[in-house]
Amino acid sequence: MSLQKSPLAPDGFPTFPEIPGVRFATGNSGMRYKGRDDVLLAEFAPGTAVAGVFTKNAMPGAPVDWGRRILPTGSARGLVVNAGIANVFTGKAGMKTVTDTAEAAAVLFQAKAEEIYIASTGVIGEPVPTEKITSLLPKLVDNLSTAAGNAAAKAILTTDTFAKGAVAKCHINGKTVTIAGFAKGSGMIAPDMATMLAFLFTDAAIPQEALQQLLSESNEKSFNCVTVDSDSSTSDTALLFATGTAENALPKAADDPALEDFRRALLTVMSDLAQQIARDGEGASKFITVNVTGAISDASAKTIALAIANSPLVKTAIAGEDANWGRIIMAVGKSGEKADRDNMTLKIGGTLIAENGMKAASYREADVMPHMKGQEILIEVDVAVGDGSAFAWTCDLTHGYIEINADYRS
Amino acid sequence: MSLQKSPLAPDGFPTFPEIPGVRFATGNSGMRYKGRDDVLLAEFAPGTAVAGVFTKNAMPGAPVDWGRRILPTGSARGLVVNAGIANVFTGKAGMKTVTDTAEAAAVLFQAKAEEIYIASTGVIGEPVPTEKITSLLPKLVDNLSTAAGNAAAKAILTTDTFAKGAVAKCHINGKTVTIAGFAKGSGMIAPDMATMLAFLFTDAAIPQEALQQLLSESNEKSFNCVTVDSDSSTSDTALLFATGTAENALPKAADDPALEDFRRALLTVMSDLAQQIARDGEGASKFITVNVTGAISDASAKTIALAIANSPLVKTAIAGEDANWGRIIMAVGKSGEKADRDNMTLKIGGTLIAENGMKAASYREADVMPHMKGQEILIEVDVAVGDGSAFAWTCDLTHGYIEINADYRS
Repeated sequence: MSLQKSPLAPDGFPTFPEIPGVRFATGNSGMRYKGRDDVLLAEFAPGTAVAGVFTKNAMPGAPVDWGRRILPTGSARGLVVNAGIANVFTGKAGMKTVTDTAEAAAVLFQAKAEEIYIASTGVIGEPVPTEKITSLLPKLVDNLSTAAGNAAAKAILTTDTFAKGAVAKCHINGKTVTIAGFAKGSGMIAPDMATMLAFLFTDAAIPQEALQQLLSESNEKSFNCVTVDSDSSTSDTALLFATGTAENALPKAADDPALEDFRRALLTVMSDLAQQIARDGEGASKFITVNVTGAISDASAKTIALAIANSPLVKTAIAGEDANWGRIIMAVGKSGEKADRDNMTLKIGGTLIAENGMKAASYREADVMPHMKGQEILIEVDVAVGDGSAFAWTCDLTHGYIEINADYRS
Repeated sequence: MSLQKSPLAPDGFPTFPEIPGVRFATGNSGMRYKGRDDVLLAEFAPGTAVAGVFTKNAMPGAPVDWGRRILPTGSARGLVVNAGIANVFTGKAGMKTVTDTAEAAAVLFQAKAEEIYIASTGVIGEPVPTEKITSLLPKLVDNLSTAAGNAAAKAILTTDTFAKGAVAKCHINGKTVTIAGFAKGSGMIAPDMATMLAFLFTDAAIPQEALQQLLSESNEKSFNCVTVDSDSSTSDTALLFATGTAENALPKAADDPALEDFRRALLTVMSDLAQQIARDGEGASKFITVNVTGAISDASAKTIALAIANSPLVKTAIAGEDANWGRIIMAVGKSGEKADRDNMTLKIGGTLIAENGMKAASYREADVMPHMKGQEILIEVDVAVGDGSAFAWTCDLTHGYIEINADYRS
C-alpha cells in the first residue's frame, strides 16, 4: 500500500548541516524495498563520544541488545541501519547478524566491532539476510559524504509518510556547535513493523558521561512523551554522537553551566523530532498536546497525561471533532493516579470546561468548536493535588489507522 | 445512529427464571430514549443480602459513591437503574439525585434509603432530571412482577446491540437454588456513554460476608478479564442479591464445602455475561481469548494477557485476519512483566508459531489461516518463568469502532 503524506507534516525537511567528523552513505540492499535506499552507513571520526537510550520493551531486538552491551565503551566509529526487517525475535541468528555487520564495518573503518552501532526496523520475527547488508558496505564506504544527511534520513524510513529532521546551533564555552538529527517512526509503531529510531549528531566536545545524562534527561521530555497507540516498540533506539570536532573547551559534567545552551538546543531538536513522529502517526488528522498540572509528582502527571493520550475514546472523539470531555475525565480516573475529582479543572483549547466536580457554569460547547475543528488540539488538566506536571503528544485515532493496520495483509 | 446486532451475539436471551423474592418493573422516563423503557425498578424481599464490586476508576459516578457507602449495611430492598445519563462528574447535584431516588424508593418499599441501590449509565457530565425518575417509581411499583427479567435486562441497555442474560442452577446443602443475572456494556465503554453494569439474583441463603467474598473472587475471573479498548468506566458496578427464599441451610463462610457448587455456578453465570460483553464490543467482528501461562504469578499473567488484549496493533491485525504474531511478542514485551524471550512459546488457534526466541521451524502461515478467518480467535502464550496463569477476553478493533466513536457526534 502507498500512504499519503500526513496532513500534519511540516513544510519540508530542514537544510541538514554538515557536522565535521560525521559522514553518511546510503544504498539499496534488495532485502525488501525496491526503488529506494534502505541501508544507512555513518562514519564517525576517531574520538567520537556516544550516548544512547533504548526501548524498555522486554522483547528487544538483537540490535538493542548489542547497543546496550557496547554503550559502556563510550566511543563510536560507525552506525549501520537497515529498514525493512527489524531483527527482533530472531534468536541466535539475530545476534550473529548484528556481530557480523559490526565486524564488517569495523574492518572498513579500522575500528573495533564494539564501536559500531546497529539499528534495524521493519518486520518482527523474520531473519535478516546479513550478506545483503555486509556486501553493500564496501560500496557505501566509497560514497561517504558529510553532505548526505537528507538521504540518510530517508533511508531509515518504513511506513513514515515524511522524513523527519531537526537542527539547532548553540554555544559551549564560547564555541558555536551544531546539533542535527533525524528520526523515523509513524508513531511508536507501524503496520507490521515496529520502531522509533532517532539519531543525533553534534560536533561538540562533551565527556561521554555528561553526554549520556543530557540525552537521558532530554529523552524523558521528548521521545518519551510521544504516543500513537500505546504499543511500545521492540526496537526503539535514540543515539547521540558527539565528534568533538568543534574543539570547544571540554565541559566538566552534565551540570556544568557551560552546557546550559547545549541542553536547551538538544531538547529543542529532540522535541521537534518527537512531535514530527506524532504528526506522522498512522492515520493522524490532528496533533494533540496534553498538559497535566497539579499532580502529586511529575511522574504521576506523566502517567495521567499518557492515560489521556492513549485513550481510544478520547482519540476517536477528537477525530470526530467532538468536545466529548467526559472521556477525558474517565481517562484521568482510569490512570490510577491521585486526582481530586471535586477540585480538578479541565480546559480544551483554553476554554474552561469542568471545575468543582462538574461542568463549568460558563461552558458552552459552541465556544470550543472552532478549536475542535482545527488541526492542533490542546487539552489542559489540573488535578489539584500537588505541583507535579508533565505533557504528552499524540494524534487522533481515525479510519486511517484501521486501514493501515487491518485492511492490508502484510 | 442505530447499531446492527453484533455478529458475535448468542442465539437469544435465555429463559429468565423467576427468583422468589425478586420482582422487576420497567418504564420510560422521557429522559433521553424514546420508544423503549429506560428505568428499571427491582424489589427484594426483606432479609435479602447483597454483595457488590465497583469500578476502580478514580472519577466514580455518584451512584458508585452511594453503593460503596451503603454496602457495609449488607442488606438490600431495592435497586433503581436508569439508562441515558450516567450521573458522573455531576458534583453535589449528582449525589442529591441518588439520595432523592433512594428515598423515594424506600418510602414505596417501607425500607431505609440505605437499602436501595442505584446505578446509572449514559452520558458523563450531564445532570440527571431526578424528577423524571422519582415520579415514575409509584407507577412501576404497581407493575412489579417476578416474571419481568427479560424486560429488566433490556431497560438498562445503552449502545448494546443485544440484551445479555445468563442462568444457572446449583445445590447448597441439598437445596436447589437458582442464579440468574443480566449485564450491559458494549465493552467497558460506549460512545459518549460509559458503563458496564451487571446484576445477579439468587434465592440462595448465604451470609453477606461469604456472598461478598464469592462475588469478588468470581469477578476477578469474569468481568475483570474483559476489555474492549482499555478505557475503564466511571460507573462499572456488579451487584449480587441473595433473597434467601430457597431456605437452604445457611453455609458458614465462603470456604464452606456446601458452597462449592454455588461458587462454580456463579462463575459460570458471570463468565457467560462477561463474554457476552466482549461479544458486543463496539464494532466487534471476532471474539478473542488470550491465555497466558508460565508467568511469575497469576497477577503478572493477567497483566500480560491484558497487554495483548488491549494492544491496538494485535486487535487490528486480527480484524484483518492477519496472523501477525510479532505484534503479540511486542505486547508481551511492553507489559513490563517478566518473560523469557528465548524460551517463551506462542500458539494461535493451537498452531505453534514461536519458540526458542524465534519463529518455530514447523510454522507455516497457511496452517493458521483457517483459524484467523473464523469468529473465535485463541491466543496462547507461555512466558516460561513460573507457574502463574490468567486469561482475557476481548474483541477485534475495526472500522465499526471508529464509526461508533468518531463519525457520529453526540
